[in-house]
Formats: sequence, structure tokens, C-alpha cells
Amino acid sequence: MNLDLADLHGSLADPLLDAMTFLNEATIRYPEAVSFAPGRPYEGFFEPEYVPRYLDAYLTHLAERGLDRDAVRTTLFQYGPTKGIIADLVARTLANDEGLSVAPEALVLTVGAQEGMLLTLRALCAGRDDVLLVSSPCYVGVTGAARLLDLATVPVPEGPEGGPDPEAVRAAARAVRAEGRRPRALYVVPDFANPSGASMPVDARTRLLEAAAEEGLLVVEDNPYGFFARTPSPRPTLKALDRDGRVVYLGSFAKTCFPGARLGYVVADQRVAGPGGRRGLLADELAKLKSMTTVNTPALSQAVIGGMLLTHDCRLRAANARATARYAAGMDTLLRELDRHFPASERRRLGVSWNRPEGGFFAVLTVPFTADDVAMERCAREFGVLWTPMAPFYPAGGGEHRLRLSISSLTQSQIIGGVAKLAAFIAS
Amino acid sequence: MNLDLADLHGSLADPLLDAMTFLNEATIRYPEAVSFAPGRPYEGFFEPEYVPRYLDAYLTHLAERGLDRDAVRTTLFQYGPTKGIIADLVARTLANDEGLSVAPEALVLTVGAQEGMLLTLRALCAGRDDVLLVSSPCYVGVTGAARLLDLATVPVPEGPEGGPDPEAVRAAARAVRAEGRRPRALYVVPDFANPSGASMPVDARTRLLEAAAEEGLLVVEDNPYGFFARTPSPRPTLKALDRDGRVVYLGSFAKTCFPGARLGYVVADQRVAGPGGRRGLLADELAKLKSMTTVNTPALSQAVIGGMLLTHDCRLRAANARATARYAAGMDTLLRELDRHFPASERRRLGVSWNRPEGGFFAVLTVPFTADDVAMERCAREFGVLWTPMAPFYPAGGGEHRLRLSISSLTQSQIIGGVAKLAAFIAS
Repeated sequence: MNLDLADLHGSLADPLLDAMTFLNEATIRYPEAVSFAPGRPYEGFFEPEYVPRYLDAYLTHLAERGLDRDAVRTTLFQYGPTKGIIADLVARTLANDEGLSVAPEALVLTVGAQEGMLLTLRALCAGRDDVLLVSSPCYVGVTGAARLLDLATVPVPEGPEGGPDPEAVRAAARAVRAEGRRPRALYVVPDFANPSGASMPVDARTRLLEAAAEEGLLVVEDNPYGFFARTPSPRPTLKALDRDGRVVYLGSFAKTCFPGARLGYVVADQRVAGPGGRRGLLADELAKLKSMTTVNTPALSQAVIGGMLLTHDCRLRAANARATARYAAGMDTLLRELDRHFPASERRRLGVSWNRPEGGFFAVLTVPFTADDVAMERCAREFGVLWTPMAPFYPAGGGEHRLRLSISSLTQSQIIGGVAKLAAFIAS
Repeated sequence: MNLDLADLHGSLADPLLDAMTFLNEATIRYPEAVSFAPGRPYEGFFEPEYVPRYLDAYLTHLAERGLDRDAVRTTLFQYGPTKGIIADLVARTLANDEGLSVAPEALVLTVGAQEGMLLTLRALCAGRDDVLLVSSPCYVGVTGAARLLDLATVPVPEGPEGGPDPEAVRAAARAVRAEGRRPRALYVVPDFANPSGASMPVDARTRLLEAAAEEGLLVVEDNPYGFFARTPSPRPTLKALDRDGRVVYLGSFAKTCFPGARLGYVVADQRVAGPGGRRGLLADELAKLKSMTTVNTPALSQAVIGGMLLTHDCRLRAANARATARYAAGMDTLLRELDRHFPASERRRLGVSWNRPEGGFFAVLTVPFTADDVAMERCAREFGVLWTPMAPFYPAGGGEHRLRLSISSLTQSQIIGGVAKLAAFIAS
């Protein structure tokens, strides 16, 4: 039985997915190319032998908490609570690393932050007229989840400070309202955003929360990279600055532990008032939706990550000190090599510029040509360098002359060699 | 910030979820009760020590296939292919156990069959007028997924042979079409259905496929329990009987391996024709949607289940021989004890009857009173037995006098004692 693509769900024919597919194919076709494309963590610190050790640490922890062998077996192997089994350990980690005081019952463990995003958008945006505001350029996972749910998004440009500009948020919310729709929530990555690499100063965070409050917006804060801040006292999250329970916080263990566990979480401590004075937590409403997407998050993944948290005393910043130093050095090298290959006069002459992220995985380079799939493939084929076109990250268009460079999985010498090749490509 | 439940997504206030919550709470309140409620597998065959062994078996397999240590590390710890990493092993298992010849590229590994269901419904039912036909009574996961997607479902009554009656399918499809909507697909569990326990004879399967062909329906076959057939030659799946690529097949390792891995899969070998003569597989379209729900299925879960498949030579029927015998004995005991407590005269006098599943986890008992939450709680409190009300499984109402009994997690003596208590409750 042949199916017609036109007859399948609209999100299937998606320019962004096509771009990602093209990029993946290019990665396979040019295996020797230096790839600034993947946003994945450095894997040199992972060892397969750790997995049984972490698992054992978690099972020992269960036994110490008084679970007998049968109860341990049930916890590891059976269907479990929809909200997850390691909320207590995640709450301790958030307290240690982010100064966030979160009740374990306000947490939902999810299959990556992506599932958390999908559940959050589904729960909050209930009506056909609800609209999600997203920073632009925007992480593709959130616009993808919105498309899956047929939820309208409206882009809000990132300001020069990083993060959506508070005035632009107000203007977008009002424009949406003027059309008879409801601006319901704002999606934002305040630290080392993907794809821009930008981070919001503390006062910009405060002003963004003020704008959200004035416009009656919930804020969905996604924080996969904040743990890699190089400063001894990192900036507070929006959730930490939130005084009126406006922020739903999405966390991920993909970068701080490892992606193969596919473990994320949502902090959803908002109180929900139901009929007849019934009250509950938004986390419980998300759990109900989760029973329709994946039922539970794998106990296996939770047990291994739980053991990893226990092994590191629920302190992922300390546990990731080596990784943080590595990423910081990678970003420094990238910016230094760009400076070296494109001195100020050369920059002006060629029309090349870039931003200066304080850390994280990503930086954005502006170039004088259209940075599309064709250019990317030529760059890979003729110059041996891969990167990610930025245009697909702009929901309303734009970014055609920009490309994203990721340093997270590269060595120092790969970055040095890669920038040299990239410079040759740009000069050509 | 307080949120109003009425302002959140409609599926949040769901009678079925409320019923399940009530049941879970009753299970916690009456821990000593014999529970015929949970549909989970018996866990006595699971041992935590097996996990590192299975993981090791899979990593050894990768090494034997020529992957060096770095490549093994990438496979286990990194983001991986959206379609999964153990499709080859799943395909071998389907060939051995079901006689199904499936190309690995037509498989998508999912976070439980639930995610497979969500992706399949989302892909197939693209338009606002698309309707999913479901057997009634129906597994709640599929109606839940449809609700999450705002997809309309139309129930088709299960016939006396088990499975949706082909004539009823035709009638439902025509009625939907007469309303100007498109009957797009039919969801069916042909073997040991949840909740009815019924299985379709082979000729009923053939006739159902004929009806689907006549009405232009795709068939979504969900098969979590078929592996536990006690006959040496189990009935062919709809997928095995399918001659024109009409069936999308959902598989699960929750019952044949263990639920804590949350691993399922979709066989989606339909060809999809795109613009410009582009052709692909439905599996690839599902993978694109999956990148919006969970990005990948945890490599950790796939590696452990992959190792389990390798350990058992990709033959789960043989590996589950002890479990199958246990479930079969449990079902026999349940039916025998019901016969003993309710002899024919007593059945008529009380208005009690039940079906006689050939295997699987579930049987359905019809009682002379309303088998609702109130009755269930009284039965737990006063008689020490728990069961599942059937009414929530009927999308269009019905089943008020029915209850579901599951034997999967009970011992012989629990079943014997439980039926005695249940009989006392019914007599009261």
C-alpha cells in the first residue's frame, strides 16, 4: 500500500528536518571533515564500565533507604510512577548547583528535555487561539514540538544582550492579542543559547520576567548548557529569580551526564486550581499527559543517572569541572583563531563578523555569502569543514548569511585546523 | 502564579485517568489486598545482576561487528540515530518468533509501544477530518494518544469472536464517511486484547483485513501479548497475513523483556511517495516526528534489551517459555476457580458470567451490580480484593457491569484466595 506524503502529517515535510537530514548525510559523506556541526557533548570522559557502577550505586542507595530485594527489583524492572523515581536526587542537585529549592513532587522526569517541552506546551497551550512566543533564532526542538501539536509560534528577536528583548516581548504579546489570540507563554534559553551561544545578563533576566508579568505570560526556561558556566558564581536562572511562580523550568542530563540515557526533567511547581476547590501541581497535570506519550521514563535511565548523581554527591557542576574547562578552552581557541584569521581590517573587507559567547557550545559567524546547504556541502567537499546553516533556526525567516559553529566535540587542534580551513573557504 | 485547570489542556480532566488514579490510590491504601488490577508482567524472573550481563553482551556484539572502543562509546553514550540502534536484532526476533520478514530500515525503536502509537496516529491522521476507528472496549493508551492529538476516535464493538467485527468496521467507516469525515485507520489488538482478553481466530483476521481493504483503512496492529500464546504454532499476526502493506505493527518489549527499559517498536514498511518522485518509508516519516517527541530512544535501554535478545538467540518465545507457562496456569486457575465458586445454576441466579481467554493476562467478569470505583473500593476495604472497572475502556459508554481481572502478577494461591474473596463480595 503506497502512501502519499501529502496525505501524511504536515510537519513531515519540514525544511528544518530536511536541513538536518542533509547535514547528517554530509557528515557521513565527508567523515574526514572537521565538523563544527554537532551540538553533542565531548565523549572522552565516558566509559562503558561506569554504567554498572552507577547502577550499583543507585541500587545500594535504594537498599540503604530500606527497600528489600523484591522492592529494588520492582523499582528497576517494572512500570513505575509516571513522574519518575529520582526526583529527590534531582532536587538535591538543583539545590546544590543552582540554589533552587524545589519540592520533589514538583518534578517530572522526562525522556530528554524534548519530552518535557512537548508536555509543557501541550498542557499550557490548551486553546486553538493560544500562541507560544519563542526567541529567534530559536532551538529547533521547541518549534518542532509546537508543529507536532499544531500550536502557533511567534518569533521574538534576540536582543543585543542575548535572550528575547523585553520590549520586543511586549510588542509581540500585544500584537498577538490584537489579533484575538492569546499569548500564553514565552520559550527562552537564557544561558549559552542554542544556536546563538548568547547569555542574558542578570538585569536583562529581571526585566524579561517583568515584561512577562505585565503581559500575563508564563515563561518556559530551557537550561541545557547553564551548568558549563566558567564563572565560580554563575548567573541565577530565571527560575531562581522568579517571585510569582511564572517559570516552568526544563532541565537535561544529556550534557551534564550523557545523552544515551535520554533523561531530562521539568520543574512545574505552579498550583493548579480545579473544579470544586480541588488543587494540585502543574507537575501532576504534566504527568497525566505523559501517560499518553511514553507512560514512564525508563527506570533504567533514571537508575544509572541517579547512581551518577549519588556518586558525585548531587553536584554536577563539580563533577563537570573537567568538561567545563575543556569547553571554555575550546571556545577561547575558536574566538582567538577567528581573530587571527580575520583581523579587523580583513573583517570589514570581507564582511565577516561573529559574536563572543562567554562559554557554552556555540558561536555564530556572519559571512558575506548565503550560508545554505549548497555552501555547506561545497565547504565540506573542497575544504574539509562542516558547520550548521543558521537560517532554519529563524522561524520567520532570516539568518541566511549566518552559520553556527559548535566546539563541544572538537579537540584544540581540530578547532585550530578547522578555523584555518573555514577561513580559506570564506576567502574563496 | 495559580493556574486554572479549565485553562489547561482538555485531556487533563479525563475520566479514565481519574479512574486509574483512583485505582492506584486504592492499591496504596489496601496493600494487603489481592490485586487483579495491574496488567504488568510477573517480575520473579528479573534479577538486577542480569542488566550488566546483557549490556556486556551487546557491547561485545558491537566489538565483534568491528566497532572499536571509541565507536562503542559513541553508540552507548551519545545521541544516536532517531530510528534506533538495534533494528537488526529486532528484525531477527520478528523473523524467528512471528515468521515476519521485516527490513531493519522499516523499524523505528520507540519509548514503549505508547510512543509508537502516538507517532503512528500523528503521521497517518493528518487532517482535521481524519478519524481513527478503535475496537471497543479499547486499550486506554490509544484513546489517550488520540486525545492528546485532538484526533477523533469512533468505537467499533468487539465481536463475539474477539476483535472488531468486520461488518461493524464497514458500517463505522461508512457512517464516518457519510458525515464528511475520513475513516483513516483501525486500531486493533488481535491477541489477548487489553482489556477483554479476547483473541481473533485466523479467518476473522482475514475477514478484518478484507473489510479494511474495501474501506481503504490502514490497520494499526498492537501486539504486546501475542508472544505468550500457549500453542506451539501461534496464530499469524495481521501483519503476517497482510498482502498489500496495510498494517502498521506496534511491538513492545515490556512484557517479553521488562517494562523498566520502556522499549517498543513500530514496523512501518509502507512506501511513501513524495513530491518530485521522491520515495521513502513510513518508518522514516515516523522518525521525523520522533525527533519532536523524544529525539532518540535511550541507547541504554536498547543496549540492554539488545543484549537480552542476543543472549536468547533472538528468540523471545523460547526465552519466555517459563513466563508463558506461568500465565497459562494462572488463567486456567482463574477460570477453574470461577467455575467452582459460580456453578451454572448460581451464575444464572446471580447474573454473573465471564469470558474464557485462551491465554494472556486478562479476563472479563460481568456482574449484577455497577462495577465502578465505589464498588471497587468497598471490595478492597471489606473483602481484600482489587480489580479494574471496565467502563472507562468503552469510549462511547458501556461496560458498567463489567470488571477486568488480570492474573499476570499473581501466584496460584493468590488467584485461588482472590477468587474466593471476590465471590464473597459478589454474593454480598
